[in-house]
Amino acid sequence: MGDLSPDEFRAAAHAAVDWIAEYLEDSQQYPVRSRVQPGDIRAALPPSPPDRPEPLEAMLRDFHGTIMPGITHWNHPAFFAYFANSGAYPGILGELLAAGLNANGMLWVTSPAVTELEQVTLDWLRQLMGLGEGWFGEITDTASVSTFYALAAARERAGFDVRTRGMAARADLPRLRVYCSEHAHSSIDKAVIALGLGHENLVKVRTDEQYRLRPDALAAAIAADVAAGFKPIAVVPCVGTTSITSIDPVPEVVRIAREHGCWVHVDAAYAGVAAIVPELRYLLDGVDGADSLVVNPHKWLFTPMDCSVLYTRDPQSLKQAFALLPEYLVTRTQDETVNLMDYGIQLGRRFRSLKLWMVLRAFGREGIAERIRHHCELAREFAGMVHFEGGWELTAPVTLSLVCFRRVQPGADETAIAAHNAAIMERVNARGQVYLSHTKLEGRYTLRLAIGNIRTDREHIELAWRELREAAALLERVA
Amino acid sequence: MGDLSPDEFRAAAHAAVDWIAEYLEDSQQYPVRSRVQPGDIRAALPPSPPDRPEPLEAMLRDFHGTIMPGITHWNHPAFFAYFANSGAYPGILGELLAAGLNANGMLWVTSPAVTELEQVTLDWLRQLMGLGEGWFGEITDTASVSTFYALAAARERAGFDVRTRGMAARADLPRLRVYCSEHAHSSIDKAVIALGLGHENLVKVRTDEQYRLRPDALAAAIAADVAAGFKPIAVVPCVGTTSITSIDPVPEVVRIAREHGCWVHVDAAYAGVAAIVPELRYLLDGVDGADSLVVNPHKWLFTPMDCSVLYTRDPQSLKQAFALLPEYLVTRTQDETVNLMDYGIQLGRRFRSLKLWMVLRAFGREGIAERIRHHCELAREFAGMVHFEGGWELTAPVTLSLVCFRRVQPGADETAIAAHNAAIMERVNARGQVYLSHTKLEGRYTLRLAIGNIRTDREHIELAWRELREAAALLERVA
Repeated sequence: MGDLSPDEFRAAAHAAVDWIAEYLEDSQQYPVRSRVQPGDIRAALPPSPPDRPEPLEAMLRDFHGTIMPGITHWNHPAFFAYFANSGAYPGILGELLAAGLNANGMLWVTSPAVTELEQVTLDWLRQLMGLGEGWFGEITDTASVSTFYALAAARERAGFDVRTRGMAARADLPRLRVYCSEHAHSSIDKAVIALGLGHENLVKVRTDEQYRLRPDALAAAIAADVAAGFKPIAVVPCVGTTSITSIDPVPEVVRIAREHGCWVHVDAAYAGVAAIVPELRYLLDGVDGADSLVVNPHKWLFTPMDCSVLYTRDPQSLKQAFALLPEYLVTRTQDETVNLMDYGIQLGRRFRSLKLWMVLRAFGREGIAERIRHHCELAREFAGMVHFEGGWELTAPVTLSLVCFRRVQPGADETAIAAHNAAIMERVNARGQVYLSHTKLEGRYTLRLAIGNIRTDREHIELAWRELREAAALLERVA
Repeated sequence: MGDLSPDEFRAAAHAAVDWIAEYLEDSQQYPVRSRVQPGDIRAALPPSPPDRPEPLEAMLRDFHGTIMPGITHWNHPAFFAYFANSGAYPGILGELLAAGLNANGMLWVTSPAVTELEQVTLDWLRQLMGLGEGWFGEITDTASVSTFYALAAARERAGFDVRTRGMAARADLPRLRVYCSEHAHSSIDKAVIALGLGHENLVKVRTDEQYRLRPDALAAAIAADVAAGFKPIAVVPCVGTTSITSIDPVPEVVRIAREHGCWVHVDAAYAGVAAIVPELRYLLDGVDGADSLVVNPHKWLFTPMDCSVLYTRDPQSLKQAFALLPEYLVTRTQDETVNLMDYGIQLGRRFRSLKLWMVLRAFGREGIAERIRHHCELAREFAGMVHFEGGWELTAPVTLSLVCFRRVQPGADETAIAAHNAAIMERVNARGQVYLSHTKLEGRYTLRLAIGNIRTDREHIELAWRELREAAALLERVA
């Protein structure tokens, strides 16, 4: 009672496939940002579960009628907020097959293909990004978890046996410190907090006028901390920060970190895959000297959520931080194989590499490079539009596919500028044609137009520019 | 270049849907446990990625020819190892739709339906399990992460501001301790290690003759630790331990924990959902007095991987442990809405509730209860077969759908018994008709037959029993 028959599943899934293709080709019919109000979806659903099986038709009716209006369309080609996630067709196909198999790769033996395809696919991705050999890769769900694992390994490698003894009430344990730039992502803060290192032991190093971590400031911060009795354990440079895609100088960071025995974890969650484009290969210069790296194929590599990749040159430290082998997980093959449960907290592991492998094969190096290059070109074009029109300004260099900009009016102070740009953004977002987000740079309110959706083209950035100018004009007329 | 056309996607995905239905109806044609050797899959795949797009046919050929032989079939009705994961058709359909939408519910506004359907669906599940009101639920990928979050909240609630100050070099911070039974899952060890509490500060409390945590031993352990200057912060009773599905006495644990201000986190990852069956409702007795609970719909609730649920009565502590709000994530609606990024490390969040919601609706309370009840009946039947045949013994009480048992020969010592049972298991698993795993109970090697696959029926346990007896007979004849 309750499960579908194979024929019912076939019919429903065929219809879902057709609907997905239609949705992806026609996503511009939807407002990018959902228009529902808080509580609308909840109020439209029954407060209690059914006692008896419900027909599929009822569910699908609710999916289309109730759920869809509550979706913000990350697949919409005019989704320019945050960083885009968009799923290419081969990735969706991979996800479908993986859901059908429902294989769990916690141990090698519990599905050898899950472990081995993950290792092969991540080695392919390493080659595509132009990194050297000797990197061990594993898929996690998000960059936050990848970074958390990297810093757990760093904590362990620092040599205090935190794993066994913990950090409290130890005379032999100094305060451990981690360094990143003031523009590093909040996931680094969360990792430091979760590991029990203490938020105040994450040192935010000053950046230069292009929002890049300043090596001299890093060296000075580390030296001062060492003198004060702290123990530096890790530095997290970022290739493509969230607010402005600034690029920290990884080679200098590596050199400084090495002097102090620090682990270097490179956060390239968004921008790392851009190194697949030959002329952007420099983005990962120096990364081969680091200890770990995170890149997210579910961001700019057109792979459906979730798929983050943690690479490390020191898988032993990762294992030292996490591996545990209770009797019920002992297998004959454990010593000859990689068992991915040993490299993190999670035991269950779904078959995420399948979709990534299908994306890499369907596009090939050239197909991927072509799209990422195109996004960067679109960003330069949009930046040009902003730059050449009075009353608008770029607020950060355009390094990749993100444009930071804002509207400025003569004589307006920072508070007025912030309020005006927030109003422009809200108006644009509420109209539903395009979707932008914002940040603050040194206290300056800044709009962000982030290009990364596989279906974004020139017409969409032109639309964004039109919407922005119209919103500004309207608000300024009213004021 | 590279992405499929909508029509190519439709054709390929329709074929994949048909194949999945065929696969699930006919999975007995496959050996349950993959027969490949370590390195086989890797060796069969090109060592480098393609430069140019590859045709879909090539990928699908490799999927069927190379990947499939490397799959261990968790969907096979004779998968009896570990705990089963099996995906019901409505769950696969939900996963397909979610992959098509690719919505990211990091904030309420980035897809209101992701946040609100998750909250509604988890409230339904709470009601189905017979828990009281006042539980906040969130979906995580695995029970390991759910437990990690719960213990992070416990660490924070202990009142030492570990979040900001960390744990090292503090005169005011005693060693924090966590308690569980000696049969608790390794995920608790991993959480304690990751949080920097130190593995030696996880106290494994003795169990009784039915492998249940002994309240008197817990009380004594806590009292001794308090006297020695430790600070107990959490107790993790388990409803359905991994080795033997023993059930710790939650009401007594809650009472003892309360006396010491400890957080109680109930690990019911496997067995919690069985409380949906009216006569098994008692499994969660006392849980309403706990602070958090983990149950995994991707185990015994027929929802495709991954889908774990963390419930807590104290979401504020979870938020206190994790919430951070950088400017680029500030939204107008943030104060009126739940933003799920605030309750854990992960920022990105895929639309996992959709598949669970579809499973709950397709089966209804009665459909779910019927299947779980049937699995428990099958376990009792299998236990009966073992019990009534000379030369075999049950090694633990059958509480739910897991049977622990082994072959014993007159005069054999423990080493010989262990070797013999390991040989029986390996022979059975190598034949590929059924798949079992093992554990050790007080040093005694024990086979495990865990029933939880939605498609398992009487014929499959009869097959398992036949395979086991034949393997034993053959090995004993040879010896």
